[in-house]
Amino acid sequence: MYFEELTIGQSAQFGKTIGEADILMFAAVSGDTNPVHINAEVAAASMFKERIAHGMLSAGLISAVLGTRLPGEGAIYLSQTLKFRAPVKIGDTVTARVEITALDAAKKRATLSTTCTVAGKTVIEGEASVMVPSRA
Amino acid sequence: MYFEELTIGQSAQFGKTIGEADILMFAAVSGDTNPVHINAEVAAASMFKERIAHGMLSAGLISAVLGTRLPGEGAIYLSQTLKFRAPVKIGDTVTARVEITALDAAKKRATLSTTCTVAGKTVIEGEASVMVPSRA
Amino acid sequence: MYFEELTIGQSAQFGKTIGEADILMFAAVSGDTNPVHINAEVAAASMFKERIAHGMLSAGLISAVLGTRLPGEGAIYLSQTLKFRAPVKIGDTVTARVEITALDAAKKRATLSTTCTVAGKTVIEGEASVMVPSRA
Amino acid sequence: MYFEELTIGQSAQFGKTIGEADILMFAAVSGDTNPVHINAEVAAASMFKERIAHGMLSAGLISAVLGTRLPGEGAIYLSQTLKFRAPVKIGDTVTARVEITALDAAKKRATLSTTCTVAGKTVIEGEASVMVPSRA
Repeated sequence: MYFEELTIGQSAQFGKTIGEADILMFAAVSGDTNPVHINAEVAAASMFKERIAHGMLSAGLISAVLGTRLPGEGAIYLSQTLKFRAPVKIGDTVTARVEITALDAAKKRATLSTTCTVAGKTVIEGEASVMVPSRA
Repeated sequence: MYFEELTIGQSAQFGKTIGEADILMFAAVSGDTNPVHINAEVAAASMFKERIAHGMLSAGLISAVLGTRLPGEGAIYLSQTLKFRAPVKIGDTVTARVEITALDAAKKRATLSTTCTVAGKTVIEGEASVMVPSRA
Repeated sequence: MYFEELTIGQSAQFGKTIGEADILMFAAVSGDTNPVHINAEVAAASMFKERIAHGMLSAGLISAVLGTRLPGEGAIYLSQTLKFRAPVKIGDTVTARVEITALDAAKKRATLSTTCTVAGKTVIEGEASVMVPSRA
Repeated sequence: MYFEELTIGQSAQFGKTIGEADILMFAAVSGDTNPVHINAEVAAASMFKERIAHGMLSAGLISAVLGTRLPGEGAIYLSQTLKFRAPVKIGDTVTARVEITALDAAKKRATLSTTCTVAGKTVIEGEASVMVPSRA
C-alpha cells in the first residue's frame, strides 16, 4: 500500500502454528541452540516445563504482517520494540496483529502497535515503525 | 551464568554468515514472504538492488548470544528494542554483540546494549532486558 | 580452550531432542534415505518397530560438544570411533558427553571418551582425538 | 542384499556436492555451531582460510552407501572408525566408497573399508562393521 492509502486504526493479522520443525529451523538460522528450545529434558526441568519457541521466532510473524499485508511490499522496517509476555509452546498457533496508531506525512512514516497472541492471550507486545512508499 | 557473576561492561558476541538458505528457512518459519527477501527480480528493482535478509533474522543472532553465551542458558528474555540501520545482503557475516549496561539486583534483571554489525558497520542497534537466575 | 587449559577428567555435554524434522534434514544432507529412517511403514515392519534416527546424526552431537564446548572453537577433529549400541527413536533426547582421557603435550593432542545416551542408556560409545591450539 | 550375496571385494559408492545449505542444515540437526562452519570471517582467519563442512557431515555419506547400496536396506550399523584427513569446502563433491574386506558367516557380519574423497584426494578413511540379514 502507498502511504496515502493508510489511515489510523487500519489493522491486519497473520497466524501460524509453531511446530517442532520451526524451532529446529529457527535455531539453524539464528544459531540459538539454547536448550530450553531444543532439549526436551532440560526444558522439562525448567520453569516452562516443556520446550518453548524462540521469542524472536514469534516476532518474525510481526515482520510477516508488516511486509506482506499492512503496509505490505515496499515498506521499510525502521524499528521494533518487543516485550515478551508469555512463552509459546510447540503446537501453539501464534497470531500477529498490527494496527496503525500514528502517521507522519512529512516523513512518510507509520507507527503500528504490534501484538502476538496465542488463544487470545498476549505473548508479545510492542510497537513498529515503518517508512512507506508515497504515490507522489 | 548466575546473576551474581555478572558485571557491568561484560560482553560477548556471536557471528554467522547469512546465506540464501537462511533467508529461505526464515521465510518458511516466519511466513514473511516479502519479495524483497525471496524474489531476486523484484529485489533487483528495489532500492536495495538485490535480495536482503529479514531484519528479524539478524535480530535472531542477538537472541543466540543472550541464550547461549551472556548471560547464557537459564536467562529469560524480557524485552528487546531494535533499530534497523542498514540492510544485510546474502553472503554478509553478521556479528551480534551484547554488553551489560545495567544490573538490577532486586529484580535479578540485566540490561544489555545489543548491536549487529557487518564488516564493522552497524546494521541493528537496540537494548535487551533479561531476568537471570540467582545462586541464592 | 587452549591446550594448556585442559586436564584429564574434564568433561562437557550437549543434549538435543531428535524430532522427525531432524531425520528428514539429515537424510537430505547425507543422502541416507534408508527406509528405516524415513518410511514409517517399512520401519514398523523392521526389528525396530518404528523409524529410527541415523546413527551418524547422533554422532553429530559429539561433534557439537567438541567444537563448541570442550575443547571448543579452534580444535581440529582428527579421528572418531563409534560403536552403535542401541537405536534412537523420534522424540528421544540424546545427550552427548565427552571426557578428556589423555593429553599429548608434544603433539598438542587430546583424547576424549565420547558417549551418547538416551535416558541414561548408552546408544553410542567411542573415542575422539583432537588437536588443540596452544598458547605458545 | 542378503549376507549370502556378499563377497570380499564388492564395492559401492555415493557422491554428493556439499553446499552452504547442507552445512546450515547439519548445524541445525547436530547443534554444532562451531564458527569454522558457519562464520565466513572467522573461517577466513583460520588455518582453513574458508568455511569447511562438518567432518561428520561427510561421514554421513558413508552411512548413505551402507544403508542404501551395500549391503543396503536391512543392514544394521554396528561400528565405524573415522580418520579426518583433509577439510571439505563449500562446493566440493564428496564421494563415499565402501568395499567389503571381511565376512563373518557365523555372526552374519561384514567389515568394509570406507573412504571419502574429493577430486581423488582422501578426506576421510576408516572402517565399518555391519550385521546383514540372512536368507536362512
